[in-house]
Amino acid sequence: MKDLLQIDGPRLWASLMEMARIGATAGGGVRRLALTEEDRRGRELFARWCHEAGMTTWTDEVGNLFARREGDDAHAAPVMMGSHLDTQPEGGRFDGVYGVLAALEVVRALNDANARTAKPIEICSWTNEEGARFTPAMLGSAVFAGAMTLDDALARTDADGVTLAQALDTSGANAMTGTRAVQGVQVDAYFEAHIEQGPILEANRNTIGVVTGGQAIRWFDVNVTGVAAHAGTTPMRYRKDAWFGAAQMSLDLERAMARYAPLGLVTIGQAQIANSSRNTIAANLTFTVDLRHPDDAQLDAMEQDLRAVCAAAAASRELNATVTQVWSSPATPFDTQCVALVEQATQRFGYPHERIVSGAGHDAIHLARYCPTAMVFIPCVDGLSHNEAEDALPADVTAGANVLLNAVAARAGAYVAAPAHA
Amino acid sequence: MKDLLQIDGPRLWASLMEMARIGATAGGGVRRLALTEEDRRGRELFARWCHEAGMTTWTDEVGNLFARREGDDAHAAPVMMGSHLDTQPEGGRFDGVYGVLAALEVVRALNDANARTAKPIEICSWTNEEGARFTPAMLGSAVFAGAMTLDDALARTDADGVTLAQALDTSGANAMTGTRAVQGVQVDAYFEAHIEQGPILEANRNTIGVVTGGQAIRWFDVNVTGVAAHAGTTPMRYRKDAWFGAAQMSLDLERAMARYAPLGLVTIGQAQIANSSRNTIAANLTFTVDLRHPDDAQLDAMEQDLRAVCAAAAASRELNATVTQVWSSPATPFDTQCVALVEQATQRFGYPHERIVSGAGHDAIHLARYCPTAMVFIPCVDGLSHNEAEDALPADVTAGANVLLNAVAARAGAYVAAPAHA
Repeated sequence: MKDLLQIDGPRLWASLMEMARIGATAGGGVRRLALTEEDRRGRELFARWCHEAGMTTWTDEVGNLFARREGDDAHAAPVMMGSHLDTQPEGGRFDGVYGVLAALEVVRALNDANARTAKPIEICSWTNEEGARFTPAMLGSAVFAGAMTLDDALARTDADGVTLAQALDTSGANAMTGTRAVQGVQVDAYFEAHIEQGPILEANRNTIGVVTGGQAIRWFDVNVTGVAAHAGTTPMRYRKDAWFGAAQMSLDLERAMARYAPLGLVTIGQAQIANSSRNTIAANLTFTVDLRHPDDAQLDAMEQDLRAVCAAAAASRELNATVTQVWSSPATPFDTQCVALVEQATQRFGYPHERIVSGAGHDAIHLARYCPTAMVFIPCVDGLSHNEAEDALPADVTAGANVLLNAVAARAGAYVAAPAHA
Repeated sequence: MKDLLQIDGPRLWASLMEMARIGATAGGGVRRLALTEEDRRGRELFARWCHEAGMTTWTDEVGNLFARREGDDAHAAPVMMGSHLDTQPEGGRFDGVYGVLAALEVVRALNDANARTAKPIEICSWTNEEGARFTPAMLGSAVFAGAMTLDDALARTDADGVTLAQALDTSGANAMTGTRAVQGVQVDAYFEAHIEQGPILEANRNTIGVVTGGQAIRWFDVNVTGVAAHAGTTPMRYRKDAWFGAAQMSLDLERAMARYAPLGLVTIGQAQIANSSRNTIAANLTFTVDLRHPDDAQLDAMEQDLRAVCAAAAASRELNATVTQVWSSPATPFDTQCVALVEQATQRFGYPHERIVSGAGHDAIHLARYCPTAMVFIPCVDGLSHNEAEDALPADVTAGANVLLNAVAARAGAYVAAPAHA
């Protein structure tokens, strides 16, 4: 197909706003936690829209909700789109739901254009992406992609002790249609549209982020030990103060990480002084370090710097420091061809764009380790997300869906069966 | 009296060790919380020893336990010595009890020498010095010196909701003898011997610390606010990270305070990141600052530096910082003449000594605002205190009591009534 397919922007926007009423909060956001009554109502609305678009729907064993538009070859692996309908407790109107409803709009637009595809097209709304009710986040796509076992997932409990298996039953999420096996599904390619959840596209005045992959992440605990002593009777020169040691490690680390700018990221989000007292010198302090970089080798170097900085600061202050890695996720490059399809579609529309790395976790990160994958980012206002004030501009919402449509159409082998105006 | 009076070192040490059996812990320390059964037993033992030394005893309305040796002038205000018999939950064998039993040993030594004094001599064991059971610390001496009302003190409750008034009744602490009014007592001078609770004397190989007063203390809360954001999607240059701001303030403060060395002290003992998460940029962090200096004007300058350092670091990182003073205690110089008596006694024995400022709180700090006051410090092993391993060397224990004896003897106008060996 040489011509550009176009989605119906106002229709997509209207669907987003209608879905945002389910779980709407007084603050203008959405609270639609996974497998709650609100989530069930959201799933039912989405399934109804899919049926109206001529699709069939089903769920799998962890409640991932699928909709399918047939292709010419019923046996071909489907080109899949998706994201999630669940939200944070005080979430917004776009995180996740944009990717699901943009995918629906892609199917509607294909219908409007009387377009057929060689391969089937499927949409999936993944269960419990946010991790706000059940841990971990991205649970549904993790099981689908084989990163987590089904039994493990079903046994996870929420804060009230309700298991995921129980929530699937009581919410009716997996009783909407027949349930299929969650694992072993063949997928030709996976495309996900999402708001950026960061400030980069907005700052650079770009409409589309062509996502090239997910960055590598490593989490560390740094424990610093000194000697507890009386704040009033201990001269400064005799002190072995874990607080000032940690402060020095932090600033030295900040300086060292600047060499990896702009891609290298460092965050110290939590810190705890054991048995702390206002007038006792800190003897035992633990702080967390979150290091990220799109390139595993660069992250290796960042980790080495972290260890060196902590050791040097500890030595200079006669403290002890231990750096313990508590979690690691390697870089996840997206599929070159899928990324190219996204970029080409963007260029054909002439949207201002840039290549970007996904800083947040997404279902697409799990899918990328399972099948060829790419993502489309659009800006979010002020970079805000996981926030009731989360917002996106209608023009950007339309642009992202247009890119998704044309990338998927190309991958699925779309063609116009008969002129719609014939 | 020209000759040096001397105490009986082994007798004092034996008394210390016998008292240490009351509330002895498995770890070699003492747990004798204020107005508990252990405290009552400690008080009874001390009172019995005082009676054996020919003294009369009584308590006042907050349970401060007094013992008196008459002087020639029954109407003269007494020269007082004292400290406390209560301990920390995991306390040692010397903190407080040394000052009480050294005072008893002074009386025993005066008796042995057949010495009389112009002024009466009194010993006081102050109630709840440690603050471990009732808040605040140094409660008994605070009421005595008029820094706290009796009603306020009696209404203070421990962790179980027991009031000080109830504890006085149930412990029998104030039923040992007649109870006198706690306030309005005339005191000629107050001397207190204590372990240093710090490392200075030991490091300088000095036996006696001639305490010149208590340092001024100011406590602050510093609140730093930035912007919460996602650790994975927020480029470093867009961040307003309260953690790194606090780290910079801490190191800048440490550097600034070095100008006040060795007397100026700075401690950051507590810190809290609000709503902290490992992968969220810290948006709201509060840390405490404890500043100390023996000179109020110098502490004023330190406070100004603190405020300037926090404002500058906040400005350079687009953060907000507020510095709030939460408590202040002015410097407490001791009485020149009383300090001189301590120093002269020390010099006459030839003990290696230095002038020192009291870094910890002591009953003597309250008394110094009420009557001429001085203190005698002896070293504690490794500077340890508030610790079961707290220790002191017998030679130092003897030396401190010798200094106390001769300072008190000089102030009270001691003379030998008749040669003991006549």
